[in-house]
Amino acid sequence: MTSADLTATEALQRIEGGSLTAESYARDLLAVCAEKEPEVQAWPHLNPETALAEARALDAGPRRGILHGLPFGVKDIYDVAGMPTTCGSPIHEDAVARVDASSVALARLAGGFPMGKTSTTEFATFKPSPTHNPAAPGHTPGGSSAGSAAAVAAGMVPLAFGSQTAGSVVRPASFCGVWGFKPSFGLIDLAGVKALSRNLDTLGVLARSAEDCALIVEAITGLPLLKEARAGEAPAKIGLCRSPVWEAEAEPELHAAWEEACKRVSAAVPSVEVELPQAYGDAITAQQRILPREASQALAHEWRLHRDLLSPQLATLLQAGHEQDEVQHRADIDLLERLRASFAQDLGDIPVLLTPSAPGAAPKWDHSTGKPIFNVLWTLLGAACVNVPGLRAADGRPIGMQVVAPKGQDALAISVAAWLGRVLA
Amino acid sequence: MTSADLTATEALQRIEGGSLTAESYARDLLAVCAEKEPEVQAWPHLNPETALAEARALDAGPRRGILHGLPFGVKDIYDVAGMPTTCGSPIHEDAVARVDASSVALARLAGGFPMGKTSTTEFATFKPSPTHNPAAPGHTPGGSSAGSAAAVAAGMVPLAFGSQTAGSVVRPASFCGVWGFKPSFGLIDLAGVKALSRNLDTLGVLARSAEDCALIVEAITGLPLLKEARAGEAPAKIGLCRSPVWEAEAEPELHAAWEEACKRVSAAVPSVEVELPQAYGDAITAQQRILPREASQALAHEWRLHRDLLSPQLATLLQAGHEQDEVQHRADIDLLERLRASFAQDLGDIPVLLTPSAPGAAPKWDHSTGKPIFNVLWTLLGAACVNVPGLRAADGRPIGMQVVAPKGQDALAISVAAWLGRVLA
Repeated sequence: MTSADLTATEALQRIEGGSLTAESYARDLLAVCAEKEPEVQAWPHLNPETALAEARALDAGPRRGILHGLPFGVKDIYDVAGMPTTCGSPIHEDAVARVDASSVALARLAGGFPMGKTSTTEFATFKPSPTHNPAAPGHTPGGSSAGSAAAVAAGMVPLAFGSQTAGSVVRPASFCGVWGFKPSFGLIDLAGVKALSRNLDTLGVLARSAEDCALIVEAITGLPLLKEARAGEAPAKIGLCRSPVWEAEAEPELHAAWEEACKRVSAAVPSVEVELPQAYGDAITAQQRILPREASQALAHEWRLHRDLLSPQLATLLQAGHEQDEVQHRADIDLLERLRASFAQDLGDIPVLLTPSAPGAAPKWDHSTGKPIFNVLWTLLGAACVNVPGLRAADGRPIGMQVVAPKGQDALAISVAAWLGRVLA
Repeated sequence: MTSADLTATEALQRIEGGSLTAESYARDLLAVCAEKEPEVQAWPHLNPETALAEARALDAGPRRGILHGLPFGVKDIYDVAGMPTTCGSPIHEDAVARVDASSVALARLAGGFPMGKTSTTEFATFKPSPTHNPAAPGHTPGGSSAGSAAAVAAGMVPLAFGSQTAGSVVRPASFCGVWGFKPSFGLIDLAGVKALSRNLDTLGVLARSAEDCALIVEAITGLPLLKEARAGEAPAKIGLCRSPVWEAEAEPELHAAWEEACKRVSAAVPSVEVELPQAYGDAITAQQRILPREASQALAHEWRLHRDLLSPQLATLLQAGHEQDEVQHRADIDLLERLRASFAQDLGDIPVLLTPSAPGAAPKWDHSTGKPIFNVLWTLLGAACVNVPGLRAADGRPIGMQVVAPKGQDALAISVAAWLGRVLA
């Protein structure tokens, strides 16, 4: 056992207490990277010397904040000054950033530092990165935050930034058996992160505990979440929501895991099956128009000058986006905003939902990064979503379950997720 | 008279018809720049050779779209590939962009091209650029889109991109006697534009006619606005709204202009005085917390590494933002979202408002860029706002009036603004 096996919260307590230095913590993590990176391939950019220099500077200086001494991974669509932001695309392979993304700079102000960049699918869309799933060998880590989920699962880094436009935090967290926290839309500032769809893009984190999720999001937003994660209180009532796509998309291994989760949850707190009104099904269809339309605008430069360097699947999506009617798009955004405003009310006396994180366990590596279909609705609603690990398919692959609370209820989501973590463990 | 005196719409019709080339149009505009730039100082970056090469390439190639042959100005917080994005700050004086902002790339896809970068106040906040007001010598052009308003007013370019977080499109348009269109929050994609406050930042345009405003926004968003600007229909009813800040902020020259505007408008269409509910006054207070809080996150990198290169006024604002309580901030954003959703309903049967664009005419040059206090509420509401020029103070300085329609009613705003342009002319 080395300090790399600790959660971030545990390691930072030792650093604060003086029994661990930031440098030796970083060394232990870099040792795991050296051992596992050839197999996992989570880090398109990792410079151990730079990371150790950052750690030494923190050891030598005054305590900066609650992340003091924390190395974190950064999905390769975030800018980190001095590192390339490739966005998983050959178009940007040489694009060294000058300025840290807002979230990265805020994490630095609290005493953390970026250890390196973690792999992403092409512009956080489809084309997989080379990353493998350390928790399910031979299978995909999921996407688009593939490297962040895999690096955390492999013990290379305790925490990593990801982003979710469809299902890119919760799904890889589920496939890799780690915690994934996609806070409410708009909670974490997006400045300095490559945009894909402005009404859907949401920053989030991958971690090894509910407390660690809360720690970093509290550090960069100021929202008090740590005490909620520590409390980990059972909800007064929970809604069990298979979601509108269950019939078409749930795989056999999900059926078994869902039954098990519902059994344990229902034994602990009052629960009720939830079926959402038809508008929520319509919203899933709207999401499939919103993303291409907004991506065609966000990636207009790449589309104009480097179309030949886009994957065929992304080029097709952008073409569809350019051809879409803007009046329809404004109507889709109106629906999104109406549902964001009414979701809590539509749930009545149910404060929070339990719902699947993905259609099943991680698909085979060479297949795809899996479907975000169990995530798109919650992303569209701007909801606070937490993947809670704990369950497994018969062959051992992780299957996560998702806690969903209406937009703005991040404290509730993280508290209930911490509770659910104990229930599923 | 040269082609530089034409509106964009007129010039592009001639280019399409073959009686004008993009190159000779650009030459005429560059001649105005050469003559007036030493006095106006609107362009921190202007390379005539590059602009002419762009124009020649358009003349030599197939017609790309409705902006074919249009040179436009770009506020120096937008990225334009190959040009520096200084943000009006010494921190970024060498920051050459690799990728066009989404809006710039979309305008290029429609056949336009950036002629150069127009000056901005420091990070679109307070510290003035060196720009002078061509329509009111010795006076400020307003801010933060100072160069865009001044360049359009001086006839250097027919259209320019600006942005508004408080009052940075409508106010300089008013001071410089040009049209300013700040569409609804979220209509124009912000990717590649330096962020200041993510719940307030809105892209917009400065122009010499309502049609030109509609032309470029239609080109980059696909929203059908040109036909509305051409129709320029009188509204069935109009609300005359002094706004909650009138008592404290209206200057004597505004009193006279407002009376004149109301007289002419009321003679043409049914009008009614509008007083907004108290929540709208509260929103103005909330805006004064939201902007610093979000700016402290958006500019966290500059705050962390280059605090000594920030103006004292901006440093004070960012400090206040860092010290603010996030729970209060979430409540402020809740208020913002509630009012955005209820504004149209709160107006009852009044579809659109007439309201001042600024406290008066442009203040003296060495004073400041003037107050955005007549704009912050509408920006916070995400409303569609158009500055309509036409009125003047006794000494000849322009005073604009603002058409405001609820978020999403951009077509209505631009149509009524075109009508009001005729009424005020």
